[in-house]
Amino acid sequence: MNLKCLTIVLASALASSLCMAQTNSAEIKEDFQASSLNQPGQDYPQVNSQGYVRFHVKAPKADSVRVTLGLGGRGGTKLTKGADGYFTGTTEGPMDEGFHYYHLIVDGGVFNDPGTLNYYGSTRWESGIEIPAHDQDFYALKDIPHGNVQQILFPSKSTNTQRRAFVYTPPGYEKDRSKKYPVLYLQHGWGEDETAWSNQGHANLIMDNLIAESKIKPFIIVMTYGMTNDVKPGGIRNFKIDAFETVLTDELVPYVDVNFRTVADREHRAMAGLSMGGMETHLITLAKPDEFAYYGLLSGGTYTPAELQDKPRAKLIFISCGSKENPTGVNKATAALKDAGYNAVSFISNNTAHEFLTWRRSLKELAPLLFNN
Amino acid sequence: MNLKCLTIVLASALASSLCMAQTNSAEIKEDFQASSLNQPGQDYPQVNSQGYVRFHVKAPKADSVRVTLGLGGRGGTKLTKGADGYFTGTTEGPMDEGFHYYHLIVDGGVFNDPGTLNYYGSTRWESGIEIPAHDQDFYALKDIPHGNVQQILFPSKSTNTQRRAFVYTPPGYEKDRSKKYPVLYLQHGWGEDETAWSNQGHANLIMDNLIAESKIKPFIIVMTYGMTNDVKPGGIRNFKIDAFETVLTDELVPYVDVNFRTVADREHRAMAGLSMGGMETHLITLAKPDEFAYYGLLSGGTYTPAELQDKPRAKLIFISCGSKENPTGVNKATAALKDAGYNAVSFISNNTAHEFLTWRRSLKELAPLLFNN
Repeated sequence: MNLKCLTIVLASALASSLCMAQTNSAEIKEDFQASSLNQPGQDYPQVNSQGYVRFHVKAPKADSVRVTLGLGGRGGTKLTKGADGYFTGTTEGPMDEGFHYYHLIVDGGVFNDPGTLNYYGSTRWESGIEIPAHDQDFYALKDIPHGNVQQILFPSKSTNTQRRAFVYTPPGYEKDRSKKYPVLYLQHGWGEDETAWSNQGHANLIMDNLIAESKIKPFIIVMTYGMTNDVKPGGIRNFKIDAFETVLTDELVPYVDVNFRTVADREHRAMAGLSMGGMETHLITLAKPDEFAYYGLLSGGTYTPAELQDKPRAKLIFISCGSKENPTGVNKATAALKDAGYNAVSFISNNTAHEFLTWRRSLKELAPLLFNN
Repeated sequence: MNLKCLTIVLASALASSLCMAQTNSAEIKEDFQASSLNQPGQDYPQVNSQGYVRFHVKAPKADSVRVTLGLGGRGGTKLTKGADGYFTGTTEGPMDEGFHYYHLIVDGGVFNDPGTLNYYGSTRWESGIEIPAHDQDFYALKDIPHGNVQQILFPSKSTNTQRRAFVYTPPGYEKDRSKKYPVLYLQHGWGEDETAWSNQGHANLIMDNLIAESKIKPFIIVMTYGMTNDVKPGGIRNFKIDAFETVLTDELVPYVDVNFRTVADREHRAMAGLSMGGMETHLITLAKPDEFAYYGLLSGGTYTPAELQDKPRAKLIFISCGSKENPTGVNKATAALKDAGYNAVSFISNNTAHEFLTWRRSLKELAPLLFNN
């Protein structure tokens, strides 16, 4: 080895050790990229390959900006003011894969991050961020035929207004005008609304991808607002199902059966919901067992064989949750249903909590089981 | 008059003069009500019967909160901090009827009002407020048959992605499956997107109401994103029409004609747009005169007879603006077109500026003139 070569080797080793040192001290990879849910042209918030989130919010005369997103129980992430008038900060640890709601606390007031799109949750439009998931391909927007998501306004005598719902019609719905489809009624969670399953859940993209891969037979999905009573925080304590049950089964289902090409019977109608929407599914499928033949509870409770007996038999009972929720309870309830002879299926979403990646994955698992038996 | 009566008269006069004094000092009627665009359960912002707007924003540790909404040229409305940690303030004067964008400046940072819904304008999701208009009935949600607004995702080779559009299909579209409809391609303004005509414009409700009153024959409306190039502020200076023209006429129109029941010819196809969307309409109808037969410029420039000659004849040229914009220019241009033998119609929206009430009214005036000759 000549002198020149030795110099290169030493320089290389030095650079390498500097690099290591830097990595050791911070342990955060500096490969941050703008979140996919940012507003057009906005560079922040950013996410790195480990799932850390970095915020960057302009508020030159503010004293404090805090972000509600962060590691559990630590009060979110406190940002630090820079000389440029921006508050910057990074979550203390990596966030779970998938979608998270959050907001800012600016000098004691609740505001959204001006960098991101807004999503209805917690009875308000919240900021949203997406941590790329290792399995995100199943809800990616691809160059394949796409179904439509239609906003409908249907008359509701019981609530004396025109109510909104969104209806997913699969690719090809417009072309073969004689074909009829089964229908899944799919409910959002507490504090969310009828926009959640499309915006946060990507239900339409999940369906488009499953259909393109021939993993399911096409069906229609109907999503409407499930909090027909008081929406104020805390209202869940006084939640009664009657008002929503009337809207759903006496008003929306008949409207959909008249205005869309549905197979209008129990055997071709499913109901599922996440969280509070699971609670609604549980109550309504038991109260109106002649309406729906397929049931899905996504982080939304369980059924017992006792409450199902003496009712028309469900063709499927699907129960799911995230691995960070109550997988034991879900698996136990499903086993008890199977023992009693029911077609029960459980699904546990790996490394997710009570959040939308759990429910996107649940829909992907549920869809191929619907309208098949 | 006995003593008792006199006392009542005096007391009454006193009360009356106190009332007058109060009215004279403030001149603002205390009949404020929550804006119709507030988020569920939010009491503020509020609007009174004169069109004043009152704001009420929680930010207990902030030094200053300013609202960009207010009388022109006065820098919006500065709010005053109360002992309860809320900043409160009322616009210096009444606002124009209709929809307005605004945002807050909280200690120097740009944030949205947490009380209101968000609307995409100025290349960001802005806060929105609605001053009830005396003629608001034409875009009210009524107990009549409603059309649907469908989100479609169409393939775009020229931009190498799946692009989004919204398609209004009129009431009854699903029932008579042999009927075919003409199509209006309707564009938003600079900094807005394909959600604007439904969210801010209520295009679907305007159509539903006109159809219910038999004032128009039903047609389809297609709304897509018109800023296919750089969306960053200031990008309008470098705006070139080519990219959008390709998306619209080579990709979207053929997709709609295959996937919806359209009458797929020039005589049953219209293009209109507001502001920058008018500029796009102007350029594209002239560049592709075989595509569209009906033209509408809403606060978006004018045509001259010279640029129309030697082209297939437009069946209608509709030009509109608010009375606070350039009504003389619009009326003059329309007169020149009429003199040259064109079927040109102008419309001036009374007491409105470059805002959405001008364009809601313009659509209401334009719709009955389409596909009629």
